[in-house]
Amino acid sequence: MSQSELSVGVFDSGVGGLTVLRALQERLPHEHTVYLGDTARVPYGTRSQAVITRYALGNARFLMSQRIKLLVVACNTVSAESLPALRAAFDVPVVGVVEPGAQAAWRAAGGGAIGVIGTKGTVSSRAYQKALAALDPSVVVTARTCPLFVPLAEEGWTDGEVPRLVAERYLAPFRAESISTLVLGCTHYPLLRDAIAAALPGVALVDSARAAADAVAEELGARGLLRSSGEPQHRAFVTDLPDSFAAVASRFLGRAPGHLEQVDVSV
Amino acid sequence: MSQSELSVGVFDSGVGGLTVLRALQERLPHEHTVYLGDTARVPYGTRSQAVITRYALGNARFLMSQRIKLLVVACNTVSAESLPALRAAFDVPVVGVVEPGAQAAWRAAGGGAIGVIGTKGTVSSRAYQKALAALDPSVVVTARTCPLFVPLAEEGWTDGEVPRLVAERYLAPFRAESISTLVLGCTHYPLLRDAIAAALPGVALVDSARAAADAVAEELGARGLLRSSGEPQHRAFVTDLPDSFAAVASRFLGRAPGHLEQVDVSV
Repeated sequence: MSQSELSVGVFDSGVGGLTVLRALQERLPHEHTVYLGDTARVPYGTRSQAVITRYALGNARFLMSQRIKLLVVACNTVSAESLPALRAAFDVPVVGVVEPGAQAAWRAAGGGAIGVIGTKGTVSSRAYQKALAALDPSVVVTARTCPLFVPLAEEGWTDGEVPRLVAERYLAPFRAESISTLVLGCTHYPLLRDAIAAALPGVALVDSARAAADAVAEELGARGLLRSSGEPQHRAFVTDLPDSFAAVASRFLGRAPGHLEQVDVSV
Repeated sequence: MSQSELSVGVFDSGVGGLTVLRALQERLPHEHTVYLGDTARVPYGTRSQAVITRYALGNARFLMSQRIKLLVVACNTVSAESLPALRAAFDVPVVGVVEPGAQAAWRAAGGGAIGVIGTKGTVSSRAYQKALAALDPSVVVTARTCPLFVPLAEEGWTDGEVPRLVAERYLAPFRAESISTLVLGCTHYPLLRDAIAAALPGVALVDSARAAADAVAEELGARGLLRSSGEPQHRAFVTDLPDSFAAVASRFLGRAPGHLEQVDVSV
């Protein structure tokens, strides 16, 4: 089997990474994919770096056993903490969501101020702030948490008054700061794109999921590993019972997740 | 030191149990209390029963070391899963939140239909349904999850349009079912009492926190262990960094939590 026939592996602490998988499948429609949602150990955001890295290595080891040519870390927390350990442990290229998101934001901002929204873990890790400062030490970045966005996305409350009012309340301070660009720094937030855009007219929204999909396309292209024709196969695994995952998954993925199986990846 | 001078110990997986502590301090204003929030391992709801019981035993062991005369399990998940193990392991009386809440609801309902709201873990454990069926096999109980209530309470968004609209959306189905009584089966929900009451006019709201405080008063009274005069001492411990706990705690407790210390209770 040629290397390009191998799958792209994607893992996340739960269901949110399916927005990254979706962006990947739209950007590279012929690639085989295999997804792992570590639903038994979600959320990662409150755990120590050592624990997060141990979980990440276990997830990656499972995906390697499924024969992958590239590993996508769809979880912002893991992308912020554990990429060096993953790159040291495995031979395949590893793509996170933070660096591609920061690069896309920096290009879109054109020197303007940048806002970042994410979970408490992502914001307090300062991962996006650090990645942006590495690109341009003079860039002005403000980051805020939006804790209600995750349950709104999981409940499917993405239209109407409630998300509009919640987005207005969280995002109004960014208007006062005249940001030019906002990074959706949590995998759940693309589902609330319309409500977010309505609260920040004229602000460019950068979706880390799409930015990561672009980075995967670039990486595979550079290595001659693209699968450019033929029907793809998509598989998905979870570490807890599949039922509640399946109920939410189609909202994040835009279609039913297909083959779904429970696995134990604990180490 | 007389036995009645010992503290009442309360633990929860995080900050929510402070509503139980608050009800306890209002009901028994002279009791010394010691609170443990296992913030490093929150949330418990997604974990297996074996893991939850292991965590509960570790938490209780720590509180025992602080010299307590009674243990309150403020966490609905632990109350549903681990009371027998706690009662077997320790000599002090153990009071959970589910049984007192179910009893108060049954008395308030007077034969009418009862609604229960809680987290996914609590609802799918069917703990309240089982406790109510044990009191009266003919009672009609409907239970629903309200995932947005927890972040609304933690954000302090308890007044205004957003909680009103969210409560209306979650609770309207109970109106169609003509329930007489609703159990607030999650420690966070008392903060949203006004919004909940507005969505269900004429429905009696049963607060498991208050019901648990009544059960503690009864238990201590029956054993001659009440401390009925003098200034109380209140201490609080958390297992993760205290900062984010302290920020939210006063909202749940109605005052600053006082002495707050980080401890390791892992076993």
